[in-house]
Amino acid sequence: MKIALDAMGGDNAPQEIVKGALLAAQKYPCEIILVGDERIIRAELGETNLPITIRHADEVIAMGEHPADAVRCKRNSSIVVATRLVRDGECDAVLSAGSTGAAVAAAQLILKRIHGIGRPAIATPIPTPRGTTLLLDSGANVDSHPEHLVQSGIMGSLYAEHVLKINKPRVALLNIGEEETKGNEQVKAAYQLLKTLSTINFAGNAEGRDIPRGVFDVVICDGFVGNVVLKFGEGLALTIMKLLTEELTSNGGAKILGSELLAETFRNLSKRLDVSENGGAPLLGVNGCCVISHGSSDARAICSAIRVACNYVDSKILERISASLTNAPAVETVTGLR
Amino acid sequence: MKIALDAMGGDNAPQEIVKGALLAAQKYPCEIILVGDERIIRAELGETNLPITIRHADEVIAMGEHPADAVRCKRNSSIVVATRLVRDGECDAVLSAGSTGAAVAAAQLILKRIHGIGRPAIATPIPTPRGTTLLLDSGANVDSHPEHLVQSGIMGSLYAEHVLKINKPRVALLNIGEEETKGNEQVKAAYQLLKTLSTINFAGNAEGRDIPRGVFDVVICDGFVGNVVLKFGEGLALTIMKLLTEELTSNGGAKILGSELLAETFRNLSKRLDVSENGGAPLLGVNGCCVISHGSSDARAICSAIRVACNYVDSKILERISASLTNAPAVETVTGLR
Repeated sequence: MKIALDAMGGDNAPQEIVKGALLAAQKYPCEIILVGDERIIRAELGETNLPITIRHADEVIAMGEHPADAVRCKRNSSIVVATRLVRDGECDAVLSAGSTGAAVAAAQLILKRIHGIGRPAIATPIPTPRGTTLLLDSGANVDSHPEHLVQSGIMGSLYAEHVLKINKPRVALLNIGEEETKGNEQVKAAYQLLKTLSTINFAGNAEGRDIPRGVFDVVICDGFVGNVVLKFGEGLALTIMKLLTEELTSNGGAKILGSELLAETFRNLSKRLDVSENGGAPLLGVNGCCVISHGSSDARAICSAIRVACNYVDSKILERISASLTNAPAVETVTGLR
Repeated sequence: MKIALDAMGGDNAPQEIVKGALLAAQKYPCEIILVGDERIIRAELGETNLPITIRHADEVIAMGEHPADAVRCKRNSSIVVATRLVRDGECDAVLSAGSTGAAVAAAQLILKRIHGIGRPAIATPIPTPRGTTLLLDSGANVDSHPEHLVQSGIMGSLYAEHVLKINKPRVALLNIGEEETKGNEQVKAAYQLLKTLSTINFAGNAEGRDIPRGVFDVVICDGFVGNVVLKFGEGLALTIMKLLTEELTSNGGAKILGSELLAETFRNLSKRLDVSENGGAPLLGVNGCCVISHGSSDARAICSAIRVACNYVDSKILERISASLTNAPAVETVTGLR
């Protein structure tokens, strides 16, 4: 298995990206192609006999650039070159911690959408006390039509079953109430389509609080809502940890506990809350494996994301999504997009 | 000052509502009219010489009922009777911990909207390490037009300034990125309207993580997004506390700390995170003071919400909102709704 890794993308690129590649090449049966400025990557990589090679790309798409425009203009940028490696069959997956918009645009423009899918969706695995809840779309597209939410439900269900190994995943629609009649026009229409689908285990509406509690295996939403919710959760978790440290310190807790016990508790808790423990988030709905990592990813997170890419490819999820859309008359009927 | 309190609304009604009234009547210079089944309320209230009276209402709107239909049909329900007391000038404010939808519908149908406001918005004060961030709309209306988001910005800014006593409140628009060009059609159009407004201190886009961090004083969003975010935050905070307790316990922390220190730390932290500490959330944009409390409110939360109602009335916020819409040509121009 060959992974094209955007070595120039992310807050900690290229150092942590290269370190992550070194970790993953020792742990997983894969070959890694680091894509980016050869001289810089070579300096970070040093000498190694692990299956890691470099593919030169002399441009980088920065965070502030307009994604689609940048992908079209910077044809030799690391994310574009890495994505082309997948399109051309040289690699099985592309992985980036750079601009999410650019990775999504490159995947859409170069790999193209799966026939029958209106818009791809980023599927973020959220750690919960009961396991993992897959939230999609967590930011690939906004202003989704109801049909796109239905397609996210189908793709998320297949991913949860075959990659996360959840039996008959419970799929829910993110809404402001449990009742079928609740919500905005978009989700009310999506609910009516979802309840007629026999190919997924649709469990009705989820409310915001159901996500962290892990009540459902897959939660479907528009990319605007998903993005806001994920970033809100990130900020809230950090704020709570900060407040807790303050409270414990002012209570004399730090002294009593000793810094080590407190530090270990926080490490364990962070680990259980940390999205990077679950690795990257796959972009579902394009013709190829594209995994998106958080901009702040360190080597450990990159290594996890490479594992996600390996699992994705092993599970043949791409073929399953295509087949599900071909074989499911219900989808064809409800989406009207094929 | 007279407060009409829906004694039948909420998970803990009427016990905690009546207890909350007793607490508030001792602390604040107000008279409380408990609205609901007289016999039941009388039994809870017992004998008191505090300024608390009862107004009989023999119906209750339950959580599952369709809000507007129920308000129209159950003309003698506690929330409808309480709201009428405000319309008729007998009370200065109405407060309910019952169905939010019913409270909003009663306010819209009975008090009516302020002239110039397209849709009212629930303004929820969120505790942050830096103070309070007011999130609106947190669930009164979905499918908002850009103009409604602008009106929320104006109302939220006035509330933050005159009730929360924040000087020149920084108002931001909830979005998926900082850049002006980001977002769905709704927020992109709202951004263009907001940046021309001279009457508020518009600070650009907020991302989800900015809310718990307290980066802005007022954050504007559609009621669908606001509701999902608030409930997500509620669930996440509870989940983190649960996981932390597990981690500390399994680390032997509980034994070392002693249950009292741990309990105190958690109490303090909960207090800093607890929405009920900040009391209820006002529904802004209707002709009268309507304060909405969480369904799980206990006596302390009800007491805080009564304080919120008192501050609302004292601050003459209603008159300020009306005047701002009358005097601000910019609003008239951008909204096209007057």
